[in-house]
Amino acid sequence: MIEIGSGIKKIIIMGTDGRGPEMGADYRYRQLESWLLQGIEEQRWRLGERLPSIRTLCQEHSLSKATVQHALQRLEAQGLVEARPKSGYFVALQPNAVKKPVSRSRIEAPRPVSVNELLLDIMGRSAAFDLLPDLHAGDLPPSIVALNRSIGRALRRQKGDDYQYYDAPAGDIGLREQLSLHSARRGWAVPPDQLCVTSGCQHALFLALMACCERGDVVAVESPGFYGVLQLLEQLELRVVEVPTSVETGMDIEALEEVLERWKVKACIVSPAFATPGGALMPSESKSRLLALAERHDLAVIEDDIYADTALGSAPDPLKAMDRDDRVILCSSFSKSLSRDLRLGWVSGARWHDRILRLKLVTQLASSRYLQQGVADYMADGSFASHLRRQRNELRERRDRLIASLQAWSTGLRVSVPLGGLAVWVELPTSFDTLASYPKALEEGVVITPGPLFSVSGQFRNCLRISYAHPWDARRTAALNRLPELFVQL
Amino acid sequence: MIEIGSGIKKIIIMGTDGRGPEMGADYRYRQLESWLLQGIEEQRWRLGERLPSIRTLCQEHSLSKATVQHALQRLEAQGLVEARPKSGYFVALQPNAVKKPVSRSRIEAPRPVSVNELLLDIMGRSAAFDLLPDLHAGDLPPSIVALNRSIGRALRRQKGDDYQYYDAPAGDIGLREQLSLHSARRGWAVPPDQLCVTSGCQHALFLALMACCERGDVVAVESPGFYGVLQLLEQLELRVVEVPTSVETGMDIEALEEVLERWKVKACIVSPAFATPGGALMPSESKSRLLALAERHDLAVIEDDIYADTALGSAPDPLKAMDRDDRVILCSSFSKSLSRDLRLGWVSGARWHDRILRLKLVTQLASSRYLQQGVADYMADGSFASHLRRQRNELRERRDRLIASLQAWSTGLRVSVPLGGLAVWVELPTSFDTLASYPKALEEGVVITPGPLFSVSGQFRNCLRISYAHPWDARRTAALNRLPELFVQL
Repeated sequence: MIEIGSGIKKIIIMGTDGRGPEMGADYRYRQLESWLLQGIEEQRWRLGERLPSIRTLCQEHSLSKATVQHALQRLEAQGLVEARPKSGYFVALQPNAVKKPVSRSRIEAPRPVSVNELLLDIMGRSAAFDLLPDLHAGDLPPSIVALNRSIGRALRRQKGDDYQYYDAPAGDIGLREQLSLHSARRGWAVPPDQLCVTSGCQHALFLALMACCERGDVVAVESPGFYGVLQLLEQLELRVVEVPTSVETGMDIEALEEVLERWKVKACIVSPAFATPGGALMPSESKSRLLALAERHDLAVIEDDIYADTALGSAPDPLKAMDRDDRVILCSSFSKSLSRDLRLGWVSGARWHDRILRLKLVTQLASSRYLQQGVADYMADGSFASHLRRQRNELRERRDRLIASLQAWSTGLRVSVPLGGLAVWVELPTSFDTLASYPKALEEGVVITPGPLFSVSGQFRNCLRISYAHPWDARRTAALNRLPELFVQL
Repeated sequence: MIEIGSGIKKIIIMGTDGRGPEMGADYRYRQLESWLLQGIEEQRWRLGERLPSIRTLCQEHSLSKATVQHALQRLEAQGLVEARPKSGYFVALQPNAVKKPVSRSRIEAPRPVSVNELLLDIMGRSAAFDLLPDLHAGDLPPSIVALNRSIGRALRRQKGDDYQYYDAPAGDIGLREQLSLHSARRGWAVPPDQLCVTSGCQHALFLALMACCERGDVVAVESPGFYGVLQLLEQLELRVVEVPTSVETGMDIEALEEVLERWKVKACIVSPAFATPGGALMPSESKSRLLALAERHDLAVIEDDIYADTALGSAPDPLKAMDRDDRVILCSSFSKSLSRDLRLGWVSGARWHDRILRLKLVTQLASSRYLQQGVADYMADGSFASHLRRQRNELRERRDRLIASLQAWSTGLRVSVPLGGLAVWVELPTSFDTLASYPKALEEGVVITPGPLFSVSGQFRNCLRISYAHPWDARRTAALNRLPELFVQL
């Protein structure tokens, strides 16, 4: 064994091969470590559960605090447990131990879109991200109180007859400057004049599609993918071709290549950062290949970047940052990272930007200036960044608790382990029918988002998306755990 | 002379023929009345100007206060002067003494729309309603301070994870209930479930056109008419047929009938209440005939009702109130009556309502709930109604001052005298070219809206719209008075 690197690294190496200079001298911490490991393996403490406190471990094992901490830190360094500030140590998620979804969609010829009516029912219940949309639990977090204060200050700052003027179509320059700074931290230094403020990401996607497509054009999308895109294609009378997509690595670029060779495709919509429903993260190599294909086939690429700021680690660079050919339209909003009630998004329209600006003007005139200024202030004083940091920890915990609960189901299932986004993709055994389960669950006040909503071809009937956007309090956890008995089997 | 009617009426009748029982007994007030009348005729006090105060008149004419008041009240009863609370008596506008615009558009075959680029320049300057958009003068009026407070309270009232949910696509029920009550006062008792909240009237018009038309369809519009509609038709690739429109009585229904007989028209967009650019008010009889034509030709009627609440008197009933056949889509917003920065409007979509709801959902998901709740509170506590009352007096004064200034121009002109809306339509002698005048005025920081913007056929080059949305402070008045020297003549 060679000792290299930092102290932690050294311990990992020792942990791996089980030998080391300390072994003979002091192995009491190793005994505790083995005991804890065995407990995790036997599910005495399950995924996401808290281990006994340091104090309890000291007492029950007659060990010093230093020894106990040493054992716990070794488990943490191996990624088996996770330290949470002021809360203790928790059994960590082992992504590789989770069975990942395997079902794939097929390539089929382009077709018009007809969206399932069920989706309107779900949207009408504001329930796309919540099993129990009527719950509205929890407190208003301090970061949202701060946001609202910032908006209130902007309102009070209105002067003269400001309220008598429409904002410029591109949006408030102060907000665009803050968005530009925010993007620059992700490796994309977009000038403010290449940004246009919208009423959310859906509005941005709508403007993007209006700008680069005409009725009847073929648009390639991820499958499973975002239902909102399918609804847009339906309303704009565009045809869709679904590209098989992994819930781990995103759109299958080889499948896309096959699609582009067989049919004339006008645009491709992708979410390289944590695509819904499974939270897939597209590798850099796929991004490069996608852009090369887009150039060769003269494709507009619409990047839905809305989940970037829900990254559990650091947010990946957007595809747009690699766009040398001015053909990637980036769409995003604050709805997933900050508040769904702001209705503020943005679009950077590449070669279609002027047309997008005009469409924004014509379809909506302008956005609220006071609101944009309030959000710009919130970003400028660092509140947004610290909100994202706090939220990151919450989301990781919620994701882990969700996956832990799912792993305990007796139905057997496969589940995605996303590094960002707000949901996991669950694949049940093929005998299950989530679409048929919807009304049964609804009777119990539980709203599920069945797999077929994420495709136009009726696929994924044994799948569903489950969100971790909301805290797992007792009632929501109970709803989650009731799901298996509400599922209909064929 | 026959004495009939009320006291006021009696006085008017006496004033008209110059005789009466009081004549011999007390004619001192008649002497003052004649002296004031002569002064108005000789323009010693011009239209919109203040007459000497009661106190001054008492002193200079050695008259009692009662006698002076009597004389002024007689002039007021004749509509020659106007009493303004706490301000005194002003020379009133005599609509019949103003020369009205006469130029009419021609009926031409349906055509695609190509909107003048100039319009984008004007919109980019937020200048469609202001000669001096950089001025931003005046104080924030108390009613807007109250509005902002109401919105701020709604923000602070957010609880739990409210901010994590999208609002229902139709909008907040509290706001829709208030809108329903507001409409009921105008003779249109719309149930809240027939209203959908939008991001302003332009967004409502966009949804309406998307819902009832397909690319290539022919849409009949007012000419001169609202440029925003022309922009929409251009972007949606609809064809336009312009219907000659009077700036006093609105769309010429006989011309519309001719149009409908010659071409297949899918929809007709009208503003019965104070159509821009001239503020035309459509008579009830025309409304009935329009609806009968719509039924006969199976037409969708899109009613742009945005100016209703800018009525100088009481707001007329909407066309929608007479809609027995579920084919009038009403579109409106708070932008002209309350604040352009709210970005809140509404649509009632008749037989197309479900499709409009779906389009709203798909293109924008939802509106901000806190904002809608803030505005609903503002309406519920009577603040909106009292704002409208206060604004009505301001707008009348601004309109009168504008027309008075225009009447003093040496160019010679005709001008509309609207009973609502925010602008007048000015027709200069035909040697003038307002389109060519635009860049010249812009050099001086003055933004005009030339007549050709209100049509697709390049007509109305000698016309322009001038708004009275903003107060006539010294700088804006100076800009207005400089216009004649900035106009280019052919």
